[in-house]
Amino acid sequence: MHQLINFQDLNFLLYDFLNVESLLQFPRYADHNRQTFDAVIETAEKLAEKYFLPHNAKADENEPEFDGHQVKIIPEVKQAIDEYAAAGFIAARHDYELGGMQLPATIASAFQSYFFSANPGTAGYPFLTTAAANLISNFASETQKQQYLPQLLSGKFFGTMALTEPEAGSSLGDLKTSAKADENSDSFLIKGQKMFISGGEHQLSENIIHLVLARIKGAPAGVKGISLFIVPKFLVDECGNIKEKNDVQLAGLIHKMGYRGTTSTVLNFGEKGHCQGFLIGEPNQGLKYMFMMMNEARIGVGLGAASIGYRGYLNSLAYARERTQGRLPSNRDASSPPLHLIEHADIRRMLLAQKAYVEGGMALCLYAAKLMDEAEASPNAKDRAEALQLLDLLTPVVKSFPSKYATKANDLAIQVLGGSGYTRDYPVEQCYRDNRLNPIHEGTEGIQALDLLGRKLWLNDSTAFGQLIKLIKATIALTDKDDNTLQPLSHLLSDSVDRLSKVTRKVAQSLGSQQAGTIDKTLANASLYLDSFSKVVVSWMWLQQASLAQQKLTLTDTDAHQRDFLQGKMQAAHYFIEWKLPTVHHDLMLVEQNNAVCFSMQGSWF
Amino acid sequence: MHQLINFQDLNFLLYDFLNVESLLQFPRYADHNRQTFDAVIETAEKLAEKYFLPHNAKADENEPEFDGHQVKIIPEVKQAIDEYAAAGFIAARHDYELGGMQLPATIASAFQSYFFSANPGTAGYPFLTTAAANLISNFASETQKQQYLPQLLSGKFFGTMALTEPEAGSSLGDLKTSAKADENSDSFLIKGQKMFISGGEHQLSENIIHLVLARIKGAPAGVKGISLFIVPKFLVDECGNIKEKNDVQLAGLIHKMGYRGTTSTVLNFGEKGHCQGFLIGEPNQGLKYMFMMMNEARIGVGLGAASIGYRGYLNSLAYARERTQGRLPSNRDASSPPLHLIEHADIRRMLLAQKAYVEGGMALCLYAAKLMDEAEASPNAKDRAEALQLLDLLTPVVKSFPSKYATKANDLAIQVLGGSGYTRDYPVEQCYRDNRLNPIHEGTEGIQALDLLGRKLWLNDSTAFGQLIKLIKATIALTDKDDNTLQPLSHLLSDSVDRLSKVTRKVAQSLGSQQAGTIDKTLANASLYLDSFSKVVVSWMWLQQASLAQQKLTLTDTDAHQRDFLQGKMQAAHYFIEWKLPTVHHDLMLVEQNNAVCFSMQGSWF
Repeated sequence: MHQLINFQDLNFLLYDFLNVESLLQFPRYADHNRQTFDAVIETAEKLAEKYFLPHNAKADENEPEFDGHQVKIIPEVKQAIDEYAAAGFIAARHDYELGGMQLPATIASAFQSYFFSANPGTAGYPFLTTAAANLISNFASETQKQQYLPQLLSGKFFGTMALTEPEAGSSLGDLKTSAKADENSDSFLIKGQKMFISGGEHQLSENIIHLVLARIKGAPAGVKGISLFIVPKFLVDECGNIKEKNDVQLAGLIHKMGYRGTTSTVLNFGEKGHCQGFLIGEPNQGLKYMFMMMNEARIGVGLGAASIGYRGYLNSLAYARERTQGRLPSNRDASSPPLHLIEHADIRRMLLAQKAYVEGGMALCLYAAKLMDEAEASPNAKDRAEALQLLDLLTPVVKSFPSKYATKANDLAIQVLGGSGYTRDYPVEQCYRDNRLNPIHEGTEGIQALDLLGRKLWLNDSTAFGQLIKLIKATIALTDKDDNTLQPLSHLLSDSVDRLSKVTRKVAQSLGSQQAGTIDKTLANASLYLDSFSKVVVSWMWLQQASLAQQKLTLTDTDAHQRDFLQGKMQAAHYFIEWKLPTVHHDLMLVEQNNAVCFSMQGSWF
Repeated sequence: MHQLINFQDLNFLLYDFLNVESLLQFPRYADHNRQTFDAVIETAEKLAEKYFLPHNAKADENEPEFDGHQVKIIPEVKQAIDEYAAAGFIAARHDYELGGMQLPATIASAFQSYFFSANPGTAGYPFLTTAAANLISNFASETQKQQYLPQLLSGKFFGTMALTEPEAGSSLGDLKTSAKADENSDSFLIKGQKMFISGGEHQLSENIIHLVLARIKGAPAGVKGISLFIVPKFLVDECGNIKEKNDVQLAGLIHKMGYRGTTSTVLNFGEKGHCQGFLIGEPNQGLKYMFMMMNEARIGVGLGAASIGYRGYLNSLAYARERTQGRLPSNRDASSPPLHLIEHADIRRMLLAQKAYVEGGMALCLYAAKLMDEAEASPNAKDRAEALQLLDLLTPVVKSFPSKYATKANDLAIQVLGGSGYTRDYPVEQCYRDNRLNPIHEGTEGIQALDLLGRKLWLNDSTAFGQLIKLIKATIALTDKDDNTLQPLSHLLSDSVDRLSKVTRKVAQSLGSQQAGTIDKTLANASLYLDSFSKVVVSWMWLQQASLAQQKLTLTDTDAHQRDFLQGKMQAAHYFIEWKLPTVHHDLMLVEQNNAVCFSMQGSWF
């Protein structure tokens, strides 16, 4: 019994559902094969269980503390990350020349899920470091790469993303941190305060490389005047050797409900007037660079959410199989032995819902990761472009669906355990608290909804949306046969897709009006649209899995254990598509009629 | 701006919606009037703000600790409860002769909501004490009343409810704690372990009176063999003076995710073989006594949930009115000033949903409390019987709807605050953790669902259900007029009620079959039914409020502030009935077709 991620499921998702071996045809991944992929994933599972899982609760109970001199973190965190770095995981996707493994994002996501499941707080540090390394690798100068990249990829330096300010969160265009060209050097003088900076201060690494969004003096207002800077905690020479401390000060630690293992900080840049920052790329292009990496960060958030949900699911499943309580409603014999929880239909409902959310979320994140691989490494330019467009469209869904529904799964995990689930003696309450961050950071659910309905749908004349509908219809066609037991599911999905397409066209017309009032009113219900769109996409994930499971069940060499697993996939597809999908009709009707209940509510009426 | 409960809303619910002054006709409440009611509520608000609210976060951060000798609790808790007791709140509903105020449950619930909102952990102790006092007052002997009642009502002694055991939670019939008649006295020797006992050990009161469910040697198996005992921490003489310590030992404290201010304990009764318990009423009738008080306890849980939700709602509302961020989607001028959060439609959606859940939940709980008053104090026997039947039917809804939806409201409160909401610098994260207990204790949501669909609906030939439908239809008729702007809402509610009635008849047929398989399959989807039933009932609460608000808006003496409030009521009714109610059609369809996705799922398929 796997306790972090079910390897049988991961196997099914990678090799059956996604046919990840198709990526081996790309020159970048040519040296790999299924064995190397599996070896990496197995190593991850072992490291996660040995070094990450054991201190998950301890790090939660003993959150980072500032003692007046430095931020203290329990020693197990550093040990775990050192092991992670030593195994090459920070550099997993990077070039061989940089010490990387040139692994596809799909495989990187698969192994990463074990660490997120075992200990999202500790896994946060290398995750941010990988993200910073990717940004530098893609957009920084050769000198900058030389200074920072090897140190980040080896885990000697850690990275952060310093975007949010006290007055600029969802609205990044309002950020105030300033950058002034230093006449005496090639650097800029940075001044400002950043907030909610994860991993902003600690003693886990020799240096911390902050990637800071700031506004160069005289730059245009809003997002068009934002530049990106490398601001190291310690300045470094050309070879990345550490020099004197930079003017970056910890202003305070933020105390969170969950994810407590990851320090969250308020940082002051340039309090003493000499904080040096080094411009990445061109001035005023900072948000563009940041957002080009955002697909990956947002898949990471979705994957983290799905993984934490997965941990709760497996934990409550194990509990439901062991714990006995009560009898079937029809059984009035008080002296008969009590049943295992899993024999109660309502417990199975809560387990099935969790399974549908977390395995569906995992399928979605891995699918997005594969699109990223195709967008980056396919030798065919048209394939690259198509994959990127589809990925862009799906990113708000990949970020928000698991964040919302895997958190619901964690809620259900508590409910399966009952009173025990509400105590700190079981891990499910921490999962619930940890996962609650995910609908907030890296763009709240409301921001994702506006990104989808206000922007992503309409890029390139909605090519990506058309492509998505085509792909979904192809899956429907596979199972839409009278003798197929999945036909009812294909019909339900077909009805929803048609409805979604129709409502999307209607929205396009409203937005096309170019009238401010109409635009605002139409986008007022973006969250409803995002939720419906997401349910359609995840239903598609499930119908594909069910269809595959159905095929594999007809094979004679499928053993009993595998048959059980495949039956479970079919049942979870039934659950999601029969129980959860059909509510989109009501929600899309509200979108279609531009229902104005929220839009017309007045602040003074509350 | 009220921060705990909006007094304007409470006023509207008590005097307009419920016409609570009609209770003044009952002899028991004859000495009261609107002024005495308001005075009690205002006193509660003041005490809650002065003594309960300030240490809510502190008690959460410094949960009760056992130092090897005693359970340590921060001193503010005792001070607050002493003030509460001194104001007469523990005895609020009891007879004048006992030092009580003879207040209706409706008013008691109204004042109690302030304490639950301010500090549910501290409010837990007197709530349990009141419940224990009620049980003793209703079922114990005159001698027992003399020994314990004055002490409980004055707050000198505190009470607990000791039901759950390590192996008997939802299935109380399996409890093992034994009671053996002591040949040397009128007492029983109690032996066993109880778990999750709130307020089970502390130094807040001179004595703790445990009401313990146990099985007398030789009693029948299951719920029919359970008796109820008074088991005091310290034995008392006939006048309630404290004697020697009884054999009740603290086996451990339980550490919870929230509600940390209330100790949760494991208690060993009779470890040394001489734990004395005193039988209440007749042997083997214990569960009946306990459940006759359960209506009140379950209303209390629903009210507590609604109140915690209310606190989060008011806090996020205040934040949304102060905090500025971003602009309308149509505004591309980055130099224009940012808007208050409340100007964003998606923020208003989250505030409206909270308002609909918590004010709807509060209306429901107060309505149930008024039914309790009618059932207890109406001079007319038929009215008493009808009120009790309706209350019995609604109790699972009153317990579960606020527990589920006010917890969702707390989730939305966090989302309104964004990153700040996830920190411990704001109260909303604690509300979210505290409220998560409510869908679990006093009967989980699944247990409530079985209670409704397996039992309550069918009592007395479904008289209560028929009465409920009649009442709802009367409200619908009020607003079902072509020139009434609420007509669309009345139609939506009418459609849902018809659907609910139809499906209920169908379920009745299935259950009537008496076949075990059919019964289990039908009850498998009880949670879906409960949720739909609850949404219909709460929509009824909202349509009544909207209809009243509409009438009051036509009055010329309604001032601007009041008009705003009434418009808000109308809008929240639109939100709940247009956005949330219509999903019952899909869920009830699953119930109607006996959808077997969960029922037929096999444990081995997970």
